[in-house]
Amino acid sequence: MFSEQDLIHHIKDKFGLAHVGDDCAVLAKDEETDLVVTTDMLAEGVDFDLDWAPADAIGHKCLAVSLSDVAAMGAEPKWALVALGVPEASWAAGFPERFYDGLNSLAKRFGVEIAGGDISRTRGGIAVTSVVAGEVEKGKAVMRSGARPGDLIMVTGPLGGAAGGLRILWGRATHSNDDAAFQRLIERQLRPEPKVEMGRALQATGDVTAMIDISDGLSTDLAHICRSSGVGAIIEAVRVPIDPDLAQLDLAPGEVLGLALHGGEDIELLFTARRDLASKVQGVKVIGRITANTGIIELSRDGALEPLVPAGFTHF
Amino acid sequence: MFSEQDLIHHIKDKFGLAHVGDDCAVLAKDEETDLVVTTDMLAEGVDFDLDWAPADAIGHKCLAVSLSDVAAMGAEPKWALVALGVPEASWAAGFPERFYDGLNSLAKRFGVEIAGGDISRTRGGIAVTSVVAGEVEKGKAVMRSGARPGDLIMVTGPLGGAAGGLRILWGRATHSNDDAAFQRLIERQLRPEPKVEMGRALQATGDVTAMIDISDGLSTDLAHICRSSGVGAIIEAVRVPIDPDLAQLDLAPGEVLGLALHGGEDIELLFTARRDLASKVQGVKVIGRITANTGIIELSRDGALEPLVPAGFTHF
Repeated sequence: MFSEQDLIHHIKDKFGLAHVGDDCAVLAKDEETDLVVTTDMLAEGVDFDLDWAPADAIGHKCLAVSLSDVAAMGAEPKWALVALGVPEASWAAGFPERFYDGLNSLAKRFGVEIAGGDISRTRGGIAVTSVVAGEVEKGKAVMRSGARPGDLIMVTGPLGGAAGGLRILWGRATHSNDDAAFQRLIERQLRPEPKVEMGRALQATGDVTAMIDISDGLSTDLAHICRSSGVGAIIEAVRVPIDPDLAQLDLAPGEVLGLALHGGEDIELLFTARRDLASKVQGVKVIGRITANTGIIELSRDGALEPLVPAGFTHF
Repeated sequence: MFSEQDLIHHIKDKFGLAHVGDDCAVLAKDEETDLVVTTDMLAEGVDFDLDWAPADAIGHKCLAVSLSDVAAMGAEPKWALVALGVPEASWAAGFPERFYDGLNSLAKRFGVEIAGGDISRTRGGIAVTSVVAGEVEKGKAVMRSGARPGDLIMVTGPLGGAAGGLRILWGRATHSNDDAAFQRLIERQLRPEPKVEMGRALQATGDVTAMIDISDGLSTDLAHICRSSGVGAIIEAVRVPIDPDLAQLDLAPGEVLGLALHGGEDIELLFTARRDLASKVQGVKVIGRITANTGIIELSRDGALEPLVPAGFTHF
């Protein structure tokens, strides 16, 4: 049986699909501009549950994950399509309109036009598919495949917050008396903010060699960059920025780092560049470097190296 | 509670979505060309069942329905994205690869590039979303809204076959001794052929005023044209082309016409034009005409007019 990544690579090879395998496909638009396009599906019972995710948050997140893919190419999002599959009961309960409320308010903030969509009935549960298209200067989209030994590895913001929020929503985390931190973590899970402006600013530096958004988890998404680029990586544990609000959850210290390394859905950007871009784009932090050890990804902790096994989210 | 169409119009108005409401959204590509884009979701238990639809047929149909939407704009399909949501059991049974086999062989025939996609796990059942983008000469996409009183109403081919095939697959039709007819009807349901070349040829005449593909059923899709164009219509029962293979099913005569009028999924094109285009595009047949009686759609049968109530497929 294939794993998810193996199937994608198998399909790509079998059918000769040149554009499959990055955050977005890059297609020619006109003489100055490329079009980047991406699609994502979220399913009830896997990506969200109705007992903790409000309809408008599902609309927000559905669009946010695709906007984040466009951001990871360094492109500017322009338009979106959305296909919504809902069972009878959710239709009757008014799910679609609240879903579009959340979707539309995020779209508006980024000047993205909802150009079309589809509404279908389903049997099993809600399934939503978003499509976002963006534009980037011709030949300038940032792929996963450009990382080179010696490049620095950076992220755009703190990690683990979305996974912490999910623990709270699942009722699997006790928290201290800081209700504001509690709410912020929940919001990072329910309504994550795509780093569109940072993606554009990073692309504009001309120094970024590879980029991906952290949707599955740092360890898994870094492995995607290393696989595409044919390189290895070392991450320094002490430099991984941990969402400060996680300190308010009753977690063991190792567990907190685990959420930052493997917890997905923060939709921060993970990228590589020849030099430190912290002075050019605010919020950026160096967390490690690319090596020539193809396929070897390690975590440097307390002066020792250990394998950083991809342990983020995979569907299969 | 909203009907499907009412919700779409409500969302369109509420959020000012200018491009929603036709088969495809029309967006500017470059100075000579418009990009048309569409998305469709198919769900297990609603649009297909695994006990009668092979995985490759689901892949074919998923792409075919979106290609048909592009055809209905008179555009040439260029690239596609596909999001596939499958439960664990279907993944383990190898559904994804056979799904892509069917999808890819149809894509190849039309020179459509599969540019990307997504694979997700679902709980309830399989859900697949296709996205197809096409190109058309700037300002020349054929909308639903251009039908004018006096225009002739035409279709590109025989109707009711896909619905007849569905009856066979459901085990609700007995058939005579013509197994070939039986198989053709099943194929019309499982692997319908999008009328891409006919859509292009019709658009090229410059005479087509409105076009839609028959996915929900002639009565329902004609109502979409009439609503968008602010007109009425009269269909002549004797001129509606009925799939000849339906004669091999054990159906009452009225039932056969019912399948042709209301059965969906034939993905033939339904269009209006100032003059008969049968001599210009082979296979085209006139079935009625557009009237000034806004919203009044009638069937002329045996010298009398009766209301042609939209009775095709709607999800809600």
